[in-house]
Amino acid sequence: MNSQQGISRRALLGAAGGAAAAGLVGGVGIGKASTETPEPVATSGGGLVPFYGAHQAGIGTAAQDRLHFAAIDVLPGASRADLVDLLRQWTDAAAAMTAGDVIGGPGESQNLDAPPSDTGEARGLDPAKLTMTIGFGPSLFERAGTDRFGLADRQPALLRPLPAFADDELDPDRSGGDIAIQACSDDPQVAVHAVRNLVRLAHGVANVRYSQLGFGRTSSTTSAQVTPRNMLGFKDGTNNLRSDDAAAMDKHVWVQRGDERGARAWIAGGSYLVARRIRMHIETWDRDTLGDQETVIGRQKLSGAPFGSDDEFAALDFAAKGPDGELRTDPRAHVPLAHPSHNGGATMLRRGYSFVDGSDELGRLDAGLFFLSYQRDPQTFITVQQHLAGKQNDLLNEYIQHVSSGLWAVPPGVRRPGHFWGQALFA
Amino acid sequence: MNSQQGISRRALLGAAGGAAAAGLVGGVGIGKASTETPEPVATSGGGLVPFYGAHQAGIGTAAQDRLHFAAIDVLPGASRADLVDLLRQWTDAAAAMTAGDVIGGPGESQNLDAPPSDTGEARGLDPAKLTMTIGFGPSLFERAGTDRFGLADRQPALLRPLPAFADDELDPDRSGGDIAIQACSDDPQVAVHAVRNLVRLAHGVANVRYSQLGFGRTSSTTSAQVTPRNMLGFKDGTNNLRSDDAAAMDKHVWVQRGDERGARAWIAGGSYLVARRIRMHIETWDRDTLGDQETVIGRQKLSGAPFGSDDEFAALDFAAKGPDGELRTDPRAHVPLAHPSHNGGATMLRRGYSFVDGSDELGRLDAGLFFLSYQRDPQTFITVQQHLAGKQNDLLNEYIQHVSSGLWAVPPGVRRPGHFWGQALFA
Repeated sequence: MNSQQGISRRALLGAAGGAAAAGLVGGVGIGKASTETPEPVATSGGGLVPFYGAHQAGIGTAAQDRLHFAAIDVLPGASRADLVDLLRQWTDAAAAMTAGDVIGGPGESQNLDAPPSDTGEARGLDPAKLTMTIGFGPSLFERAGTDRFGLADRQPALLRPLPAFADDELDPDRSGGDIAIQACSDDPQVAVHAVRNLVRLAHGVANVRYSQLGFGRTSSTTSAQVTPRNMLGFKDGTNNLRSDDAAAMDKHVWVQRGDERGARAWIAGGSYLVARRIRMHIETWDRDTLGDQETVIGRQKLSGAPFGSDDEFAALDFAAKGPDGELRTDPRAHVPLAHPSHNGGATMLRRGYSFVDGSDELGRLDAGLFFLSYQRDPQTFITVQQHLAGKQNDLLNEYIQHVSSGLWAVPPGVRRPGHFWGQALFA
Repeated sequence: MNSQQGISRRALLGAAGGAAAAGLVGGVGIGKASTETPEPVATSGGGLVPFYGAHQAGIGTAAQDRLHFAAIDVLPGASRADLVDLLRQWTDAAAAMTAGDVIGGPGESQNLDAPPSDTGEARGLDPAKLTMTIGFGPSLFERAGTDRFGLADRQPALLRPLPAFADDELDPDRSGGDIAIQACSDDPQVAVHAVRNLVRLAHGVANVRYSQLGFGRTSSTTSAQVTPRNMLGFKDGTNNLRSDDAAAMDKHVWVQRGDERGARAWIAGGSYLVARRIRMHIETWDRDTLGDQETVIGRQKLSGAPFGSDDEFAALDFAAKGPDGELRTDPRAHVPLAHPSHNGGATMLRRGYSFVDGSDELGRLDAGLFFLSYQRDPQTFITVQQHLAGKQNDLLNEYIQHVSSGLWAVPPGVRRPGHFWGQALFA
């Protein structure tokens, strides 16, 4: 546009310093630049979660309110070098965005002849505790017998596709994925922006397989958080593992040195992420009586307390009987069946989100729980889910349907600038 | 469950007063009741928008951050009396929820033998400025030549289906609808809860036709709001009509007495709502240069200012030329084509939201703008859209696609408890 050429002349006089800075930071040359000066980006301390550390943020971090999750497939033509380059770019971009910066630095995107290095919709927004967390799926290591990126000998022994569970109705297009990206923030626009910009950086190397927004966390993950309610209207996560309990996190969430040896030891300090999209039959649930809803869940709806108590945090006693001599809690209720005491101590950190994706062709809400859990060993999830799945087991199965599934090995944290996500995997 | 019968005995002694209150308020008898006592519901003054008034809330209200929109169809078997009864129930429920109460009052839903009167997931959450706004579509008055509810002579002359626009690709299943419900709140769980509970009350009388979540408002609607950015990364709504300008609202948004006469005068104090789901080709846009993006929009991206200025709120001068003697703003850019000065003064109140509904089968984000506008006369929207639509017009059309459409007549506000939405329509 000529109008912009007109502007660019003055820009080259007045704002060339900024454009030069952009050239240094963003790797673009000095070209036409607009007259604009960057506006300050909100970086209030309360809204920042450190990106660098021994573990990736977004696992032990107190659960934020919003989620944008994406499963990414690396394209057939991409090489190992392309993959490493992508992970480097992603890491730098995630570090910038979680710090409240735009990609490319403060002087980004003022070259009128190039696409902006940041898509812009989070500019001026507080990062609102943005975290970005990635994981590597089994298919990244081996697909159809092919060692795609020379990583086959580094696939953790525990990273195998999840088994089929009774009554699963999985959509393969919404399951699996070479790489998982979990972006969490208290602001959905920030979470959406974060995933969108990683996807953009992947152009030509990797594509989105599916993505999912979540709008309300469904578990307390720290002892300071109030227990939220899920789409069933029940408090969820009362007895969740607390990420501020470091000993419990080491025992149940973080892969320890020695869990895997040799070429597979890159996963130490990481975790395993399970994602399950669980559709809820909301309309059926809403017509059920309060008494039956409570029977199905195994807790009271209003208080979240076990039967016979007013205290949400009262100890669960599944053997307790009422005055009539019968068990207060149905043994097939969801809470007892999922409880560690009935699963050999199996304990995971749940970090799921509610979703509503409009309505289906019958006008029913396409709503439910995007279940996310982190655990030291995927067998934890498998044990519990095998216990729950099937109409003869968890009473809740009448009201829910698992429609997608995925498992990823979550590498440890990025220790410092210059390092990248999964660096030890490629060392 | 026997365990709950055990509880109920004590409940009938200890909490019978609460159960009796529930019986009175919620219209259910005293049955088995749980031991729980209601927990306080957050009712912080800052989170409440008054429900009753001359106009419906959610139009002039400063735009909240989140949206749940639903289009509802009344079922073929429903009568006029069913419809009126539904509107009465909806009005009372909306008044309760926007006031931070649960449906059925504080003692609701403790009858174990009945479904809870409230689905529960907003319990304990601040209403976060929840507003609920409804509108009546042309099909409520007449469908396929049938006067379904004896309302045909009351259909406003201006309430006719929108005309086809060039290059529309509308999904009929996501367009139209007998009744529109707009729930806005700063908390998506509150907005979702509000729509869900109206839908639940409609069981057997009306069904969801489609619904849409939005996660970021895309316009400032009052002079106190900072201009947000849309999914194109541009500030949106800089020159939006401001709802705190009462004279402008009367001129452009609120239907005035005399606009419609006789049986159609029920719409006075109301408005007309247009909804358009506008899919954005995000990936294409993101690969476009900054200069071209700015040319297409007709403003600068970083500041939102007109070309040649640093001030977002600088007066727009579409005749301004740069030093090279050429127009600074392309006449086919979006901003000039949509501007009132190019549309005979046509001015609407935009109140749209960004959406991301996961990704499509090609891995592209299913993202864009759920455009909502309120205007005194639908012709305002029609004039502007006819000006914009078509590849030969708005340059932005290369990057967007209108995929749904709807128009509804929005009745005036409910004046006081006991009245109901659209009461004058049925008087």
